[in-house]
Amino acid sequence: MNLPERVTIVEVGPRDGLQSQGATISVADKVQFVDLLSGTGLRVIEVGAFVSAKVVPQLAESDKVFRKIHKLSGVRYPILVPDEQGLERALEVGAKEIAVFTAASETFNQKNGNASIDESIEGLRLVTRRARHEGIRVRGYVFTCFGCPYEGAVDPGKVSDVVQKLDGIGVDEFSIGDTIGLANPAQIETVFSLLMMRHRPERLALHAHDTRGTALANCYHALTLGISIFDSSAGGVGGCPFAPGATGNLATEDLVYMMSGLGVETGVDLDKLVDASAFLEPVLKTRLPGRTYQAIRAARVAGE
Amino acid sequence: MNLPERVTIVEVGPRDGLQSQGATISVADKVQFVDLLSGTGLRVIEVGAFVSAKVVPQLAESDKVFRKIHKLSGVRYPILVPDEQGLERALEVGAKEIAVFTAASETFNQKNGNASIDESIEGLRLVTRRARHEGIRVRGYVFTCFGCPYEGAVDPGKVSDVVQKLDGIGVDEFSIGDTIGLANPAQIETVFSLLMMRHRPERLALHAHDTRGTALANCYHALTLGISIFDSSAGGVGGCPFAPGATGNLATEDLVYMMSGLGVETGVDLDKLVDASAFLEPVLKTRLPGRTYQAIRAARVAGE
Repeated sequence: MNLPERVTIVEVGPRDGLQSQGATISVADKVQFVDLLSGTGLRVIEVGAFVSAKVVPQLAESDKVFRKIHKLSGVRYPILVPDEQGLERALEVGAKEIAVFTAASETFNQKNGNASIDESIEGLRLVTRRARHEGIRVRGYVFTCFGCPYEGAVDPGKVSDVVQKLDGIGVDEFSIGDTIGLANPAQIETVFSLLMMRHRPERLALHAHDTRGTALANCYHALTLGISIFDSSAGGVGGCPFAPGATGNLATEDLVYMMSGLGVETGVDLDKLVDASAFLEPVLKTRLPGRTYQAIRAARVAGE
Repeated sequence: MNLPERVTIVEVGPRDGLQSQGATISVADKVQFVDLLSGTGLRVIEVGAFVSAKVVPQLAESDKVFRKIHKLSGVRYPILVPDEQGLERALEVGAKEIAVFTAASETFNQKNGNASIDESIEGLRLVTRRARHEGIRVRGYVFTCFGCPYEGAVDPGKVSDVVQKLDGIGVDEFSIGDTIGLANPAQIETVFSLLMMRHRPERLALHAHDTRGTALANCYHALTLGISIFDSSAGGVGGCPFAPGATGNLATEDLVYMMSGLGVETGVDLDKLVDASAFLEPVLKTRLPGRTYQAIRAARVAGE
């Protein structure tokens, strides 16, 4: 087996995970969650989003959260921004990295961002230019790369075009999203092989959702292709708005567990990660869906 | 990608799945569950076990269940038997296939079967001989092939030895079990590569548990090695007695979903399978953990 020696996990729980939660979470709880995550060895933690508080009330106080978290050297703390207004807020709080987004499906982008894909990329041109001018790294999410809740199948060529355009406006890293958790390893092969014809694997991340249980199979296959950046969320926090009751984000514990078994270094302490998720679970008043998380929690309870 | 064109799914929900459930399930409900499964296109359904009613009360009435189910031609209905007494009962009801079991970990086998591995295989010698004499096919489960709750790591050489001995007493097919859901794709590679040095892949099955979310990654990797028999349970029914609260068996829906995406034929109608699980869920009064199952259920509810 010829796998990368180490991978970078982008922890998206505090943003992608919490944005879909019904519970109101205090700034103090969000800060503690991020600080617990910082202590696990994770090297990238997406802290929040500077989006409209009307659209995503769960992330309304991301400025406060970002200011209050205890930032460790060697850990990156990106913030999601949709536009120049968001970038302003990112600059105000001193963020060193932002994440922007578009989609590979026109209908999804219209519904999610009220713009065509080209319009949304055009809107990101100034954001990205200014960010880079200020020394800020830019991650680019591409949603619905393997299937769309409105359009169904998505052409891998479209994914490639969108990534090419994001590259053209100066985006540093591309997070290839299985937004509704539809992908299988054959699609991973097709899409990433195509992307790697133009872009180094070090700039490509897989953002897997576990809605149908395939997330780790997809990560594993991407790993065999040389992909070494994976997005996931602690405890698997984060639902899928298009399938209420179904699980969403890949759980970071599951990812760390598999990578560890494969001898691939993540730098993450699994027990500390479970502590972070175990802090969050009563805050959200919901059962987190992560499997390794639940197995370790159950073993702890049994051993108590 | 060079994958098998089709795979055989061994549905173990009515036996492996139900044996660990707290709820008492009536014969009528078990029969209906199996009959619903028979209608999905599944080609192998493990119906129950002829074990001591004291040890596994959930399966006490397997004789009645076996007699009452509507058996379709082309579908195999194996029954788990631990010993000659169990085989007697299998002969009485006219079973055409049995499943026997041992383990790759001595401590697990002692605790599970109150015998050394060699003693348990010796005990199966007459069972297997008589079964084959009667024209009955014999499946052999090997538990804890990738890790043991008592001993930790399990030597792949030990797995190979046990399979070799089961082959020696006439077992037709070997189900290689990740009993507590610890395995990763690297272990799948090691163990199955070793087994395939002596046995054709057509005689080897992977029995994956999803306790840590790795089941489909393991099945996917086994598939790339040429393995084409996979055990799973409808809706993911079946807990792991060593980690209460954690999930157990791989959900058949997740397996079918992934195989379908990979273009590998299973013969199973996913919607009918969800119907079978949806019948079982209220009977068990518990939420089934299968991810594809829950996603499809949620979509159905949303569409109602």
